[in-house]
Amino acid sequence: MGTIEECGEKGVKALIVISAGFKETGHEGAELEKKLVEAAQKYGMRIQGPNCLGAINTHVPFDLSFASTLPKKGSIGFVTQSGALGTAILDWIIAEEIGFGSIISLGNKADLDEVDFIEAMAEDPDIKVILLYLESIERGRKFLEVASEVVKKKPIMVVKGGTSSAGAKAAGSHTGALVGSFLAYQKAFDKAGVILSESMEDLFNYAVAFTEQSLPEDEGIAIVTNAGGPGILSTDLIEKLGLKMATLSDETRQYLKENLPAAAATGNPVDILGDALPDRYAVALEAALKDDNVHSVLVLLTPQAMTDSLTTAKHIVEISKQYKNKPVITVFMGGDWVGEAAEYLKDKGVPCYNFPEKGVKTLDALYQYARHLKLPELEPPEYPDIDKDKVAAIFKAVKDDGRKVLFPHEASQVAKAYGVPAPGSALATTADEAVKYADEMGYPVVMKIVSPDIMHKTDIGGVELNLTNANMVRIAFEEIMRKSKKAQPLAKIYGITVDQMVPKGKEMIIGMSRDPQFGPMVMFGLGGIYVNFLKDVAFRLAPMNEREAQEMMEETKSYTLLKGVRGEAPSDIDAIREAILRVGHLVWDFPELKDLDINPIFVYGEGKGVSALDVKITLS
Amino acid sequence: MGTIEECGEKGVKALIVISAGFKETGHEGAELEKKLVEAAQKYGMRIQGPNCLGAINTHVPFDLSFASTLPKKGSIGFVTQSGALGTAILDWIIAEEIGFGSIISLGNKADLDEVDFIEAMAEDPDIKVILLYLESIERGRKFLEVASEVVKKKPIMVVKGGTSSAGAKAAGSHTGALVGSFLAYQKAFDKAGVILSESMEDLFNYAVAFTEQSLPEDEGIAIVTNAGGPGILSTDLIEKLGLKMATLSDETRQYLKENLPAAAATGNPVDILGDALPDRYAVALEAALKDDNVHSVLVLLTPQAMTDSLTTAKHIVEISKQYKNKPVITVFMGGDWVGEAAEYLKDKGVPCYNFPEKGVKTLDALYQYARHLKLPELEPPEYPDIDKDKVAAIFKAVKDDGRKVLFPHEASQVAKAYGVPAPGSALATTADEAVKYADEMGYPVVMKIVSPDIMHKTDIGGVELNLTNANMVRIAFEEIMRKSKKAQPLAKIYGITVDQMVPKGKEMIIGMSRDPQFGPMVMFGLGGIYVNFLKDVAFRLAPMNEREAQEMMEETKSYTLLKGVRGEAPSDIDAIREAILRVGHLVWDFPELKDLDINPIFVYGEGKGVSALDVKITLS
Repeated sequence: MGTIEECGEKGVKALIVISAGFKETGHEGAELEKKLVEAAQKYGMRIQGPNCLGAINTHVPFDLSFASTLPKKGSIGFVTQSGALGTAILDWIIAEEIGFGSIISLGNKADLDEVDFIEAMAEDPDIKVILLYLESIERGRKFLEVASEVVKKKPIMVVKGGTSSAGAKAAGSHTGALVGSFLAYQKAFDKAGVILSESMEDLFNYAVAFTEQSLPEDEGIAIVTNAGGPGILSTDLIEKLGLKMATLSDETRQYLKENLPAAAATGNPVDILGDALPDRYAVALEAALKDDNVHSVLVLLTPQAMTDSLTTAKHIVEISKQYKNKPVITVFMGGDWVGEAAEYLKDKGVPCYNFPEKGVKTLDALYQYARHLKLPELEPPEYPDIDKDKVAAIFKAVKDDGRKVLFPHEASQVAKAYGVPAPGSALATTADEAVKYADEMGYPVVMKIVSPDIMHKTDIGGVELNLTNANMVRIAFEEIMRKSKKAQPLAKIYGITVDQMVPKGKEMIIGMSRDPQFGPMVMFGLGGIYVNFLKDVAFRLAPMNEREAQEMMEETKSYTLLKGVRGEAPSDIDAIREAILRVGHLVWDFPELKDLDINPIFVYGEGKGVSALDVKITLS
Repeated sequence: MGTIEECGEKGVKALIVISAGFKETGHEGAELEKKLVEAAQKYGMRIQGPNCLGAINTHVPFDLSFASTLPKKGSIGFVTQSGALGTAILDWIIAEEIGFGSIISLGNKADLDEVDFIEAMAEDPDIKVILLYLESIERGRKFLEVASEVVKKKPIMVVKGGTSSAGAKAAGSHTGALVGSFLAYQKAFDKAGVILSESMEDLFNYAVAFTEQSLPEDEGIAIVTNAGGPGILSTDLIEKLGLKMATLSDETRQYLKENLPAAAATGNPVDILGDALPDRYAVALEAALKDDNVHSVLVLLTPQAMTDSLTTAKHIVEISKQYKNKPVITVFMGGDWVGEAAEYLKDKGVPCYNFPEKGVKTLDALYQYARHLKLPELEPPEYPDIDKDKVAAIFKAVKDDGRKVLFPHEASQVAKAYGVPAPGSALATTADEAVKYADEMGYPVVMKIVSPDIMHKTDIGGVELNLTNANMVRIAFEEIMRKSKKAQPLAKIYGITVDQMVPKGKEMIIGMSRDPQFGPMVMFGLGGIYVNFLKDVAFRLAPMNEREAQEMMEETKSYTLLKGVRGEAPSDIDAIREAILRVGHLVWDFPELKDLDINPIFVYGEGKGVSALDVKITLS
């Protein structure tokens, strides 16, 4: 601590604490770390680390790390929660001659964390793309907010450690961090437009393409190849990843037919045959780039007897320069035979990989980012009819009553206060009240005894179904009361609920789950009693905009059911989407809402709405 | 053709035809190819190709290809349907110094195909592992038979081109082959124990490990690492791939605690910390290998300030030699800092990769193969009660009648002839017959008019439900006949079916699909009207053994339903498994069976069997 004080006295503004022995070692270390931060704060100093491996910037330049050599100057920024991984990557990129702008080792994140460094790199004109290796994100919602803004300017790509339960445990013991559920991370990255990868190597392959090439303006990939096999493997992966092969225009096909040998394939992939010389690559690449249906090109080369890979590379560089708005990615397969050409391409800013899957996955990353940038910016819709105060009052009453679980009629009222239609449901304490409620909501109704002490309501005569008029309601009230009191004289009885009976619709579920870092997520999917084993559900972080709610529905197989299968009429998709959005507001507005489950929510035919039949709510 | 004849006259035994211009160019080329084969057959000559890039064998040695240099001698055999891919791989493995035994370019497979070369490589003592790049397999069942035998001796691993519809189209136009459905290929590879990979690079990574390391004898992977991050990423992938992290024994943990610094993590991953010197790697690796719970070890190294990677590599080689039955895979991340050490490891037969995912995926391949070898060899069970002749007779009668679609009572009788329980179903042409059948099968019954001309049976009064005694059956027969004849006087009437009514069970489906290369596949899953949108089904190639049928059921989510969810009693799993197996025999025995669909087949409680309620059969 003495050193910290001295630094403070000297007017130092920021510290990089490399030493270990803090939070990662346990309770005592955590205490020490707290003191470290307090000491620094006294002087307004910010801290990177402790337990980190420093920082490198090739533009200033400075090297505040263990590294022996600086990497090549470039525009990739890398923030890593594992210092050792940073060192390994550093050594690897030096060997691969990948250009780097800045590397940051986060360490224990006692003060500065990934959010701070993303913000800093967003402002740094030398950085074009931000890469992250993260094990935990403590400020989940702040990350979401900052990342969402930054990706509008620069792509952010991440590898997340601790995605499995064993991995999360290892990550926890490693940095003392609470890792949280990977599902929430995935949804947060999706929402923000952050690209998630499983492999550090892929991440750097993508980064190279992002720094050197433009984004594709539309779908439509053309492949130019001198070999069938690699073209087929690329096509397979393109389809698997949901990318689109371009349909070449008639003019292009005609041009290719006239300028390539008869045996060449002029569809897509364009197979220019094994004996293709550089000029044939030039013809095919230029034709593809000229085609309005083509927005990116993958050039594949295998070394065959006549192949002149270096001249081919030169042609590719020359031509691709003239079509700057269409990214060109190359895959030169082989070893020494293509080595010089591959170096030449990379040196001139055309990404070159040695296997087709790396090229296709890189295109996929470019497309993911390009698509995200094109999405219209939508805010969660506002619903002026939402009655937040009413829900607050219900929750307060439940807590005041010493309960955490809402009674069905209370839960139903919460749903209705947020504009989610639900059958009429009210608690009556007298027969007159019961009749009044039943008259209001309409017949038939169901009546049930409400008591936390009575478990098997039906068995003791505490439930009456299908009551069709006021007289039946009056009689049912007296009968239920009499039987309940007789069966359990000591039970605390709150009254009797009167529930409107509604027609059956398609059974869906809307639920929620709350993540410690990222807050509430809404779940939607197939409802009914088999929800737990069919697991046809999708999640989104709340609150959602209309697009997110729609995508969430389309992610489930049950969406087909809602659209109408086997000649059935379509269901009221607008109404269920709105219900999802309204639940999104509810779970976002009330952090004390621990569990919410609407199962089933009935969805009726088009224009006929939905009805939240069974609402369960638990408070924390 | 002249050359062929000359070769024949000279007593040449086999030809490699490199020239193109055959089947791949269209109809004329295909004719030429046929003549080529016929000419060779006249002299008993076998042909590799045409349209191929030759063959290389480093042991004989010979080089009958375009390659300029021979690769390092080794024990990998590689058969490729894309010659260019072969050339590219050749160039790559020469640069990577991967040892090779034999490379075969298949070309158009006019005569010799992958099955022939797999058989040859199986017999070749210089080949330890067989790699394939395939776009099509014409002799599907022969491949299955041969591969199943060969994998008992040597692993076979494959990359399949044309897995997507666009890729299959490209593959078809490329070699003129009928590619078929990827699903059937997957099931065939699974059944034979052939390991399928998506990436050629992965395939060679696996191959190196297979040639140099032994197979793990049991689950349980230990990780030794000097860095948290890579250990976490490896653990994530191990869990994701369904591999198992070993639980270290108490002795091992105690030993590690005593011999590693206090801050080291002695769980699994064993984190020996960033300042680990070679001796610490030796301590941890040896302790892990000694542990009976550990059957393979992944050693991770990142280059940090104190790291001595070459000496560490030497220790690893030394120690791993002493535990030959436990494979050791290493990942040395970085570039120049670890380059020499990585070379040393590879040279001494310890696979070394530069990123964790490559190491874990390689372990996964070793485990896949080891698990397959351990499976007891099971034949499809025989059912002596199967009445093949009866089904043949039914099919013949249907064909003689000029129909392709079986009537429901015929389809039901087919199922019963193969021992799949189904409700009683018979065609009556007189009221007496109807009563006789109803008496035999038991009441209640349903009766329906049978006529290919009457579409809306219910509307015209052609259906009577819930008939509970002989008298009702007799009256119903006359009434249905009268109404049908009145409604459609010209309709061809076959009679009236009498169907036994059975109680409802869990609704499952058993179906089939026939692949042009691999023959019939059986489908099992959730039945009922939503089968098409929930798609909770699994496939296996027929006929299956009991393990395959069981695994097939367990692959579906609906299996949970059969086991009993939400307190429900379990269903008769033995009975439905047997029904699946019996259907497997049926579709295998009758190649003319084009479509079969049992939806639903009711599954009842344990010991209560199944009932094929609705059987649909179409002949080709």
